[in-house]
Amino acid sequence: MDSTDSRKKIEVCFSPYLFPLFKDEFEIIVVIDVLRATSAICAAFHNGVEGLIPVSTIEEAKEYQEKGYLVGAERQGKIVEGFDFGNSPYSYLKPELKGQTVVLSTTNGTKSINIAKDAGQVVIGSLSNLDVLCAWLEKQNKNILCLCSGWQNKFNLEDTICAGAISDHLLSSGKFRSEEDSSIAAKYLFLSAKDNILGYLKASSHRRRLKNLNLNEDIKYCLTPNQAPVIPILNGDCLELVKEDVLL
Amino acid sequence: MDSTDSRKKIEVCFSPYLFPLFKDEFEIIVVIDVLRATSAICAAFHNGVEGLIPVSTIEEAKEYQEKGYLVGAERQGKIVEGFDFGNSPYSYLKPELKGQTVVLSTTNGTKSINIAKDAGQVVIGSLSNLDVLCAWLEKQNKNILCLCSGWQNKFNLEDTICAGAISDHLLSSGKFRSEEDSSIAAKYLFLSAKDNILGYLKASSHRRRLKNLNLNEDIKYCLTPNQAPVIPILNGDCLELVKEDVLL
Repeated sequence: MDSTDSRKKIEVCFSPYLFPLFKDEFEIIVVIDVLRATSAICAAFHNGVEGLIPVSTIEEAKEYQEKGYLVGAERQGKIVEGFDFGNSPYSYLKPELKGQTVVLSTTNGTKSINIAKDAGQVVIGSLSNLDVLCAWLEKQNKNILCLCSGWQNKFNLEDTICAGAISDHLLSSGKFRSEEDSSIAAKYLFLSAKDNILGYLKASSHRRRLKNLNLNEDIKYCLTPNQAPVIPILNGDCLELVKEDVLL
Repeated sequence: MDSTDSRKKIEVCFSPYLFPLFKDEFEIIVVIDVLRATSAICAAFHNGVEGLIPVSTIEEAKEYQEKGYLVGAERQGKIVEGFDFGNSPYSYLKPELKGQTVVLSTTNGTKSINIAKDAGQVVIGSLSNLDVLCAWLEKQNKNILCLCSGWQNKFNLEDTICAGAISDHLLSSGKFRSEEDSSIAAKYLFLSAKDNILGYLKASSHRRRLKNLNLNEDIKYCLTPNQAPVIPILNGDCLELVKEDVLL
């Protein structure tokens, strides 16, 4: 790569476990947890939720519950007993959530948000908000990292394909460059998958795990692009919609 | 995956940094560093080297040098000053190495060997010994992990494609199963790359790095399958050829 290359970087980190190798170089961190946290977060904002507070632990979730918040908590794909909902996008489409600030703790996604927030501006990425997010990122002129939430610190395909889609868009714009092989691989995987994401992911371990939990409707929602064209962004401890009008 | 499935596992770990997430489940660990350590190791054994001692640090390498060994040491793609050679496969094809035991320390590959050796039987993998290695692994009836050496703890494409080739072979045999998305992704990347590995990797960061060092001949050697059909295996601190005749 030419050292005089002034284009900004778009790179992909495959899991939170690898984040320490990347964290100091990026101004924007797109946190991705396609199945299902970041898809659910986009669904919530698209449904009119006012704010969403991501917390890492069940203890923090309980504290918010005691304060009167509506709180979602998911572990291993299931709603944690005693909480209002888990991370199914459909839980967030209920009319009574409009205008509310809700709280969410999930196995992988909210942990990623919380490790990323000290390193750069956190933005929520999913297939649900793919096109609007890409259009917004392209205008930022910042170094961007896609942080895949993975599954228990390991690589997963659905987050990587989403990151590959974002990388492909930004690289095609000519305004960004990639130096990491992880970014190149994510792009290759997206290009192989893009015409049939659901079919491509049929071998995916995480999708198999959710299918065993009878969550096929959730999977279809999460893997269908552009159902919730919103850009949730972290402000302090709370996600809210980006103010700027980017719906081109 | 059916819990009664008795097939052995073949999985892929993208970098030594992720190895703690995998290390307790595998009896055989295939260490892969295509550019260039494991390709050079296969070249050495194919040229008649008797044994090869992989060491992690330059200090250890110097100690062996003081004892009279021929010692190779590479860092950042270059031969370390004061050593006999680096990790170019061509360094290991010299007639004077026949029958010798040599020592090697490299940026990524020998470190992988040394972190893997307490977890399982270490076997050397590269594109150079792909077919003979796959045939041997298929007969072992053991859980197998492909450990990609990566680049400075990060994912790289060439090691992943090699791991994907091994996974594809073993899964196709029907005797093995994969549960990790990393293994599925490695297989997908290999299947996309296999008809033109050199072309596929033209975007790879590590290949670009070596090209800048004028190592095109090395790259061609390392990316051309089955040039050194040998199976180096770790015995104590020294790599030696597997005894069994596996050249089917």
